[in-house]
Amino acid sequence: MVQMEPFIAAVKVEAAKIDEYMRADLARLQPTVDGLLQEVLDYGLFNGGKRVRPLLVVLAARLCGNRDDEVYRLGCAFEYLHAATLFHDDIIDNSEMRRGKQSVHKKFGIVAAILAGDFLHALSMATVGRLAGGRGLEVFCHATTGMVDGEFMQLRNATKHNLSELDYYNAIMMKTGLLIAAACEVGAIYGGGTAVQAKALRDYGVNLGCAYQIVDDLLDYLGDPAKTGKAVGNDLLEGKITLPLILSMGCADAKDKTRLMTILATTTERAKYVAEVEELIKKYDGFSTARQKATDAVEKALTALQFFPGDKVLYERNVLAGLARYVLARDK
Amino acid sequence: MVQMEPFIAAVKVEAAKIDEYMRADLARLQPTVDGLLQEVLDYGLFNGGKRVRPLLVVLAARLCGNRDDEVYRLGCAFEYLHAATLFHDDIIDNSEMRRGKQSVHKKFGIVAAILAGDFLHALSMATVGRLAGGRGLEVFCHATTGMVDGEFMQLRNATKHNLSELDYYNAIMMKTGLLIAAACEVGAIYGGGTAVQAKALRDYGVNLGCAYQIVDDLLDYLGDPAKTGKAVGNDLLEGKITLPLILSMGCADAKDKTRLMTILATTTERAKYVAEVEELIKKYDGFSTARQKATDAVEKALTALQFFPGDKVLYERNVLAGLARYVLARDK
Repeated sequence: MVQMEPFIAAVKVEAAKIDEYMRADLARLQPTVDGLLQEVLDYGLFNGGKRVRPLLVVLAARLCGNRDDEVYRLGCAFEYLHAATLFHDDIIDNSEMRRGKQSVHKKFGIVAAILAGDFLHALSMATVGRLAGGRGLEVFCHATTGMVDGEFMQLRNATKHNLSELDYYNAIMMKTGLLIAAACEVGAIYGGGTAVQAKALRDYGVNLGCAYQIVDDLLDYLGDPAKTGKAVGNDLLEGKITLPLILSMGCADAKDKTRLMTILATTTERAKYVAEVEELIKKYDGFSTARQKATDAVEKALTALQFFPGDKVLYERNVLAGLARYVLARDK
Repeated sequence: MVQMEPFIAAVKVEAAKIDEYMRADLARLQPTVDGLLQEVLDYGLFNGGKRVRPLLVVLAARLCGNRDDEVYRLGCAFEYLHAATLFHDDIIDNSEMRRGKQSVHKKFGIVAAILAGDFLHALSMATVGRLAGGRGLEVFCHATTGMVDGEFMQLRNATKHNLSELDYYNAIMMKTGLLIAAACEVGAIYGGGTAVQAKALRDYGVNLGCAYQIVDDLLDYLGDPAKTGKAVGNDLLEGKITLPLILSMGCADAKDKTRLMTILATTTERAKYVAEVEELIKKYDGFSTARQKATDAVEKALTALQFFPGDKVLYERNVLAGLARYVLARDK
């Protein structure tokens, strides 16, 4: 078992600090901004999020030698963009709940959710431009347009049952990886890192995001619903084709492959096929192969950290390593 | 009658150039961006818009001495943000048509309209950050957050019948003025203008936007429906309280004021009160006072142009002056 305590304590400390800076931002906005908008921002931003993206910004900047506290403001920008994305995504996916509370559009209406997302969007871009300059802004905006592009791709892929492994990696990169990688890279840029350091941190982020998403997909079939809070096979119920299934389809015999395709083409009562699909994935080692790919990604993330040797950044390196290992160890 | 031809010709030439740059941008994006997203952008961006905001960017930069063509790219960013705002506003207002075509959300669905707006948002911010630096980006983002804030204010004001003149100016500033003023100011920043020049161009934009909106409100009551394309008193039908009404309410006697408040509180069959409201506005000179305020604003805009003397910028000054005068002369 991986030693989790110091890493978790660090995450909590940093998350509290990010929350403090976000509250200061909102308080500064307060005299000039409409009361309802403030209420929506307050509701949508403070929902017990772990603030992983800001944490990555802060640690990346520190690994590159930066020690000031202004970096927390830069971190906030990533939480603002992330929140803006969630406000709009919950409308798009018609999700009623988010972290055990009503989603923003459910609570305040779709108009407020669109507008508050747009507000945070602009606030985040202004912050990144101010603190991380043109290069930082370019990385940040590229992640944003990439995420949108990914959503369009997802609309198109929703009816496509023969996704390739490459389609899958592209999709998770756009959904999760781009913003996580951008947090690492923009943190490095802000911290004055070299091009090599910025690249290494970006690689760390890409692999962290990739491993995170693969494990998410594994937990969907293999996790304990009491811990994950989701029904087993929820992705399949929603028609989502994830890595374990793609890998098994890739090596299944003709009969099993046809059977899987038939099930995927079924749009009603998918629940009764979950156990069968799970068995077929197991038959072709889809879960263990996917887990191995997540492990490989975490190894790559850890390797990227080798670009930052020395005791001065031991704490930061340990937290980032802990985060990468946690992604594999988590059960919820 | 104001001499319009040279000004209109200039607007057409510049609009064609902006369209050319926007098409080049989309062509550059094409290999990496989802086909449906491209289709939405193409549909939403090329709708016969007059490209006033990009024109202001280009002319402001030139007034400050800039002569390169890269400024057209910066101009495009303002059209992207403007379009993003329209995509989202049409969802919010549930508008089915825009410039004689189906609105984006009506044609492609709400999901595509939200996402394409977010995409243009990020694209515009990245462009402004790259070309106009941190200061330009700050002005641009401030306009964006201000527009959102204005929409929230509008939600709140929708049930408020005793709007002050100040409420009105704040509302039109947020709705129209901020982005127009930002186009002028960011153009000046890009063009290397001094702080005084940037301020003068911003003032021009604020007053242009203000006059434009007041005339819009006048045309709503006094315009020819065959030219404006809207029913007489459309604002009143939608429950919108505009400057002519506010000004008349401010000096009406108790009986007429009570009558107007009663009509405004009526939410059904407002059409039958339009003629009566128009008469009451006329009784207290609401239309002529409002027109005088629009004229004053145009005078202020023209005065701001005096900061840019000399023959070298005669063309730019004339086009901007023509634009300001056109705002007063227009009948549609």
